[in-house]
Amino acid sequence: MAADYGKAVCPMNAPMIQAPAQEMLKLLEELAVFSAPGAGVTRLLYTPEWSRAQFFLQERMAGLGLEVVSDNVGNVYGKLTGRNPEDKVILTGSHIDTVINGGKYDGAYGIAAAVTALHYLQQTFGQPLRTLKAVSFCEEEGSRFPLTFWGSGHVTGLYDGSEAEACADSEGVTLEAAMVECGIGMGIRSDKAESGDKSGSGTVGMGSTARRNDIGAFVELHIEQGIILEKTAKQIGVVQAIAGQRRFMVEVCGTANHAGTTPMHMRQDALAGAAEMLLALEGLAAEAGEPLVATSGRLEVLPNTPNVIPGEVLFTLDIRHSEEEELEAFCDCILAAFKGIAARRGLTLKIMPRLSASPAPMDGGLTGMLESICRNQGRTYRNMVSGAGHDAQLFAPQCPTAMIFVPSRAGISHSPEEYSSPEELAAGLDVLTALLYELAYK
Amino acid sequence: MAADYGKAVCPMNAPMIQAPAQEMLKLLEELAVFSAPGAGVTRLLYTPEWSRAQFFLQERMAGLGLEVVSDNVGNVYGKLTGRNPEDKVILTGSHIDTVINGGKYDGAYGIAAAVTALHYLQQTFGQPLRTLKAVSFCEEEGSRFPLTFWGSGHVTGLYDGSEAEACADSEGVTLEAAMVECGIGMGIRSDKAESGDKSGSGTVGMGSTARRNDIGAFVELHIEQGIILEKTAKQIGVVQAIAGQRRFMVEVCGTANHAGTTPMHMRQDALAGAAEMLLALEGLAAEAGEPLVATSGRLEVLPNTPNVIPGEVLFTLDIRHSEEEELEAFCDCILAAFKGIAARRGLTLKIMPRLSASPAPMDGGLTGMLESICRNQGRTYRNMVSGAGHDAQLFAPQCPTAMIFVPSRAGISHSPEEYSSPEELAAGLDVLTALLYELAYK
Repeated sequence: MAADYGKAVCPMNAPMIQAPAQEMLKLLEELAVFSAPGAGVTRLLYTPEWSRAQFFLQERMAGLGLEVVSDNVGNVYGKLTGRNPEDKVILTGSHIDTVINGGKYDGAYGIAAAVTALHYLQQTFGQPLRTLKAVSFCEEEGSRFPLTFWGSGHVTGLYDGSEAEACADSEGVTLEAAMVECGIGMGIRSDKAESGDKSGSGTVGMGSTARRNDIGAFVELHIEQGIILEKTAKQIGVVQAIAGQRRFMVEVCGTANHAGTTPMHMRQDALAGAAEMLLALEGLAAEAGEPLVATSGRLEVLPNTPNVIPGEVLFTLDIRHSEEEELEAFCDCILAAFKGIAARRGLTLKIMPRLSASPAPMDGGLTGMLESICRNQGRTYRNMVSGAGHDAQLFAPQCPTAMIFVPSRAGISHSPEEYSSPEELAAGLDVLTALLYELAYK
Repeated sequence: MAADYGKAVCPMNAPMIQAPAQEMLKLLEELAVFSAPGAGVTRLLYTPEWSRAQFFLQERMAGLGLEVVSDNVGNVYGKLTGRNPEDKVILTGSHIDTVINGGKYDGAYGIAAAVTALHYLQQTFGQPLRTLKAVSFCEEEGSRFPLTFWGSGHVTGLYDGSEAEACADSEGVTLEAAMVECGIGMGIRSDKAESGDKSGSGTVGMGSTARRNDIGAFVELHIEQGIILEKTAKQIGVVQAIAGQRRFMVEVCGTANHAGTTPMHMRQDALAGAAEMLLALEGLAAEAGEPLVATSGRLEVLPNTPNVIPGEVLFTLDIRHSEEEELEAFCDCILAAFKGIAARRGLTLKIMPRLSASPAPMDGGLTGMLESICRNQGRTYRNMVSGAGHDAQLFAPQCPTAMIFVPSRAGISHSPEEYSSPEELAAGLDVLTALLYELAYK
């Protein structure tokens, strides 16, 4: 049981599409069936298709010999109890929900790989030293309700459930009502500890309180959702940090006026001013260099009429970096540049902070182990920053946390076009399995 | 009757707010009452408030001793028949319709001044040599139906009425149905010549065909709708030309992608590309100098989501100049610059022409007379280009045409805030009256 799995046992040079990989790919396809109608996969929190997916997972976990546990917000766990129950739990997984018309890999891949890895490890090496859990978090995307990380946020203490009453979806259904509708009994049985195998009960949730203090490490396998691995021809991304993020709403006010009768030098054109700001944003971001990214994704013009000089422009800023200080410095620099542009043009400027999330550095010990595993398995890999947010960022401040990326074709995600090849998915599974072995069996 | 009105008779140094000016200001206020509810004045073509305004004008014209004539699209004329009926008609006036929540001066001022000038000339100098007509065109703004110049366009032959069947307002009412509803009998009595005074009939229109071939000169007095006269402290603008106009829709396509996971150098950001184009537009327009103006008033981003790099941007271009060649050359230059930007950024570009209107030069003889009148009356004036479109532009290719501008406070128009002072309005009336005297009495 103390075999050097990374070097000796892990099939470094074996064909990729082997039995465990096939099992994982099959599970991914099975999960993709649980979707609302329409292109791609749409599996929003607490909808019938979401319930069926989580119930299906419980059945599958039980069938694979894992002990099934769910909590009072609908997170589902498959557990492999260790021989040292006093040791903290090694947790791996991702989220079961999707965006509207999303793909079948974002989130689901990390769950399918987690279940498969635990099954493989149990079959190959028997009971681990430390308890292993595969988790299917109920929600991460924020696609139905205006809250993200509803699953991992409960596990890590970001949420306590009090948010559910006031938070509603676009049709006015509150999060609380959606939970009741779906048979999720948040709080109802919070006195009860983890309630063991409920795979036969036909319900999801009704379990223990979601908050966990027994996690010793969290590992998340995920598609990159970017184009870096493909462009640099690497099989594996070893995530060093999940970028911190600042969002702002910027309001630029000038003077709406007649497009024909106002000479160029007498204008306070809010759109021309905004254009200069957006170019400055792009230029300064390129100058700052990777991993900084800065985006204006949403822009509205008022009155938005062809023959009227724009009087007002509203646009968003989304700025990300893996280092808090660099992130802050860039935001300061951009906002100062915007102020200068506004002042020179006689425009008024209002900058409204909308979101501030700190960078989440991954654990150096775990990333070092991932690099060793990649080398031992003969895989190409690179260190990288995750520009996208992930459940892992909530665990990073609380326990050693790692993320493994596999390539996304053309960098596309949140789309029915989302794709990673069976070989790429299998490579990620192999790396995850090797790390879990290191963490739970040695 | 051959007195030198401009020099001797016209009250050059008399107080401005004299009897005729008071009559005109009163008429302006009376017309402003005919409005749909809401801020400012809303008087859309063939609505009840429009009908009441045109009917009121017919009554007023008749009361002032003018012969009232209307045509089969609802243009209303007040006529002062000349002693030489074989001479062509001297026509002056503007449009009675407004934009939604417009002001009380745009259009109505030119009508009120025309009626007042004719009354004053008749009272002071008796019958003119050449027939004088004050006109209230039924429509110019295009605010209800997607057609502009419906009144002057019929008079000059741009329209023949066949457009009315297919053209509908935002509620689906066709122009034809609106005319019937309003009692306007387009075409019904087109065999009938100008039918004389109908002021007592209670209807507008039902008159002769609108097309006129007997116009010897057209003079339009209008508020500037710009800020040039105010900024340069001039009382009168002598319009040299109405700018030609080109409109385009520009489509910029890049690649929508994740704002967090796509490094800056791997982006095809359609909004950043559009921003560079808009800055180039502004810069090249400033370089080209007056009277060129170039505006992007409308811009749409797709998918317009804060954390997605914009994949597509659509924006409008509105480019105006008084010289056809300069206008063409600037459009060519801008479109070439856009192509260069798109190519360098790996964006695709589609440029769709939407409107092309040639510049309309005013008559040199008439503008010379206006300058003399201003000098003789001791008024400050400047030559200028009208960046806005006006009824006068349809007459310019067909007969000697002139436009007189008075200042608009802060350059504001198409707004309830539209304002010109009584003194400014009176100055315009004096200049118009003097020109009409020159044209009809000498």
